[in-house]
Amino acid sequence: MASEPDREQEGGQEEEPEELEQADGREGATSARPDAYDDLLEQYRRVSYLGDANSVLMWDQEVMMPEGGTPARAKQRGAVSGVQHELFVDDDVGDWLDELEAAGTELSAEERAVVREIRREYERKALVPTDLVEEISEAASDAHPVWQEAKETDDFDAFAPTLERLLDLRREYAEHIDPDADPYAVLFADYEPYLDLETAERVLERLRDRLVPLLDAIRDSDVDLHDVEGTFPEDRQLTLAREALETLGYDFERGRLDTAPHPFSSGTQFDARVTTRFDESDPLDSLGSTIHEFGHATYTQGLRRDAYGSPLGQHRGLTVHESQSRLWENHVGRTRAFWELFVPRFNDVHGTDLSAGHAYEAANQVHEDNLIRVEADELTYHLHIILRFEIERDLLAGDLDVSEVPAVWNEKMDEYLGVRPETDAEGALQDIHWSHASFGYFPTYSLGSVLAAQLYAAAEDDLGDLDAQVRDGEFEPLHEWLTENVHRHGQRYTTDELVQEATGEPFTADHFLAYAESKFGDLYELER
Amino acid sequence: MASEPDREQEGGQEEEPEELEQADGREGATSARPDAYDDLLEQYRRVSYLGDANSVLMWDQEVMMPEGGTPARAKQRGAVSGVQHELFVDDDVGDWLDELEAAGTELSAEERAVVREIRREYERKALVPTDLVEEISEAASDAHPVWQEAKETDDFDAFAPTLERLLDLRREYAEHIDPDADPYAVLFADYEPYLDLETAERVLERLRDRLVPLLDAIRDSDVDLHDVEGTFPEDRQLTLAREALETLGYDFERGRLDTAPHPFSSGTQFDARVTTRFDESDPLDSLGSTIHEFGHATYTQGLRRDAYGSPLGQHRGLTVHESQSRLWENHVGRTRAFWELFVPRFNDVHGTDLSAGHAYEAANQVHEDNLIRVEADELTYHLHIILRFEIERDLLAGDLDVSEVPAVWNEKMDEYLGVRPETDAEGALQDIHWSHASFGYFPTYSLGSVLAAQLYAAAEDDLGDLDAQVRDGEFEPLHEWLTENVHRHGQRYTTDELVQEATGEPFTADHFLAYAESKFGDLYELER
Repeated sequence: MASEPDREQEGGQEEEPEELEQADGREGATSARPDAYDDLLEQYRRVSYLGDANSVLMWDQEVMMPEGGTPARAKQRGAVSGVQHELFVDDDVGDWLDELEAAGTELSAEERAVVREIRREYERKALVPTDLVEEISEAASDAHPVWQEAKETDDFDAFAPTLERLLDLRREYAEHIDPDADPYAVLFADYEPYLDLETAERVLERLRDRLVPLLDAIRDSDVDLHDVEGTFPEDRQLTLAREALETLGYDFERGRLDTAPHPFSSGTQFDARVTTRFDESDPLDSLGSTIHEFGHATYTQGLRRDAYGSPLGQHRGLTVHESQSRLWENHVGRTRAFWELFVPRFNDVHGTDLSAGHAYEAANQVHEDNLIRVEADELTYHLHIILRFEIERDLLAGDLDVSEVPAVWNEKMDEYLGVRPETDAEGALQDIHWSHASFGYFPTYSLGSVLAAQLYAAAEDDLGDLDAQVRDGEFEPLHEWLTENVHRHGQRYTTDELVQEATGEPFTADHFLAYAESKFGDLYELER
Repeated sequence: MASEPDREQEGGQEEEPEELEQADGREGATSARPDAYDDLLEQYRRVSYLGDANSVLMWDQEVMMPEGGTPARAKQRGAVSGVQHELFVDDDVGDWLDELEAAGTELSAEERAVVREIRREYERKALVPTDLVEEISEAASDAHPVWQEAKETDDFDAFAPTLERLLDLRREYAEHIDPDADPYAVLFADYEPYLDLETAERVLERLRDRLVPLLDAIRDSDVDLHDVEGTFPEDRQLTLAREALETLGYDFERGRLDTAPHPFSSGTQFDARVTTRFDESDPLDSLGSTIHEFGHATYTQGLRRDAYGSPLGQHRGLTVHESQSRLWENHVGRTRAFWELFVPRFNDVHGTDLSAGHAYEAANQVHEDNLIRVEADELTYHLHIILRFEIERDLLAGDLDVSEVPAVWNEKMDEYLGVRPETDAEGALQDIHWSHASFGYFPTYSLGSVLAAQLYAAAEDDLGDLDAQVRDGEFEPLHEWLTENVHRHGQRYTTDELVQEATGEPFTADHFLAYAESKFGDLYELER
């Protein structure tokens, strides 16, 4: 009898909101800011809150929802996305933006950044006809089962017409946003708005030109790195994942750890959650994946709380987001220093007798014959990405026909990775992205890794020997550095400005290449 | 490296929705239905989906969310409620309703029911100025900490001005909806729209007049019912709760069981979840609470899936909802038959040696000196409710002054329950409802129990000896009967029509009184 059903809450009032101090752009601003600024920000916040609500629905769907809930959840998410879109493309938003752009120096620098970011997002939404947005959404819905079936039956031809149609729709989409631009550049900017495509292309080419010979050398090396073998029960892996998060400084008061079939992180600076999954034969992979998601979540936790709902409290795009996950995953979690710190816990939990050196080796194995991107190691991963980037860029430009994709894919696999898929299921059909009508997403994975190395080098310049700090479990200085130089800025700066501010130089692959060549050169005893 | 962060999902397309067959009111309809009907229903569905989205946010907040998430969650829920309200009170909705009400027989009976229900809800939202809605919401927000503090310090006077203000605001609210009606009747109709207040009042008076002497007789009885004593670990109670749900036929494909500080159930016909909590000294209370929430959830699971988002796929109000929870909790879960079925599982899990008879006694103990509603037993519970009903009704009518509440409360406690609180914390300050500005909610708890008895009697008329079926663990016939006669109708009928259809007679306390007097008469060996 001690129960109060939630009908009480339906019938009664909303739970009282705890007040949030919201301060965007006012501090120290001498500007006589037009009312339009407050109107714009208020509308934008509502849109953001709805987006975050949708993200809770997504988390629940992936982590908690019983299977039967799918049809209703689709309706709920569709309704939230729909109103979110309608609020954003409201004519008022366009008018406010016009007024504020004309206002110029009446706005502070922070306020101008807010206007810049809302304008960017607004254009990408308002310029595309709602009919086309819905058509793409439906086409992607229809594409998903077609892709799944094609992958299961290893039949690329069955997917080809669908892929063709998705490409056509995305070209049309890009033309609405900017009829004069390269359509692939327009799509890429959906994910990374401020590193132009030429920069991205140059960096990826450098990676390809340096990593292919590095991989060749590794293949020729006689060194056999230690492997971790055995069975590692899920519950122990979960214990260890939790300890790893605690060791690294994850704030469980503003987050949680769960399992999901496809690990992800999501949420806000008030509640940034991590998910992971466990492979009983590969405890280091799961741990690396947990630390990766920790990096994403810790970025989110580091965003300004007083700027919640404003662009100043939102992440700077996928390159920067991925730089945070890769920095923790690779530059911390795959170091000898980390394993010197953590291997005793690993051995305790799993009842093993692994040495730090062996763990370090196992965490950095290069898999020479891997065909699958999501199973790739730190090094070959980028060659998987570059291949996809080149193919999707050429597809969008019309320089490559859909029917040629499998052949080109296999050719490039051979050329870059020295291995050739025997089926399209293990080749051009392996990733979900294209069936989602997502083109231009892949490069941000590699760009994020590149930026991770650049940021880590800059942090080391400022903080001294980071390896020593990692070994001692002192992560606070690194957290503070990242918060100070990256997280707290939200979208205050563009990506290139942020990189320059944080590292003192423009975006560059130098640090990543130096790091990769040195680390794998040592591990595989390569000549320099 | 095996991870795909959710930025992929943010940047990409929505997950593809599985198609839902939606069929409201079309089947066999010969009506030449006006377009306005489809427009209205489409808008209403969007509103419903947003409401269900909010309910997921609420579930997550109560069950999963880390503490730090509170401020952001308040913003998210506020944004969803806000757009939901705006969509509903749109002028178009009023115009469509006008047109459809004029259309008369062009609509089928189901379609007319849909229009009736949307009209009812629309009036209650559209007639109240948004300013007032927000004022009430804010006043309730402000009231909550005041009430908490007053309760902690046992200081009713500190809460009195707040309560006065909430009553004033609710009177104003009621006047907007119907200036000619008794304001309490208007508020009551927010929770139970179709049993008029006179009916409710008559039933509650009958309960009072019969239960007070019954309780007196129990107090005078020499019978001591068996009690369950000991410590019952939470994990075992959880195991048992899960087994109880399985035994009773809960569909875990469309639901889940978790723990929450205040048990509740929530969700849709696709995903209706149950929460519970555990008291290590009182395993029967926790089990009863689980079964109570199961009753709510199984009603939700029984709603028409093809009517999701329409009034035909929504619950019929709080009386009917509570009838489902009480039917399973009391008429099934507190019977000797249930314990004959379930006590072996109980003993297995807890390593005890309880007999069915003793479990039955323990589950039906009447607590003669209990002051707290949420800790009350099946019988005294109603006297707690009646007292609150009488007080809030008189407050709204202006027949009772706020300052008199504690004295009247204690007086009635003495008169109805034979026990007098020594503090207001254990008296008039104990419940959260008034601080939420919820007046008129309490009666539905008792009305639901009354209806549970009436429905159970009707089911027994149709299905034969239900006790025997319970003893055999055969719950399917009862489920089917409830689905057929209650759940699948959604809001097709008004409450009074539904009761008449399902039981062949109007809403009546006869069955409940006969049940209570017989059961407790036997247990306490009372003279008849």
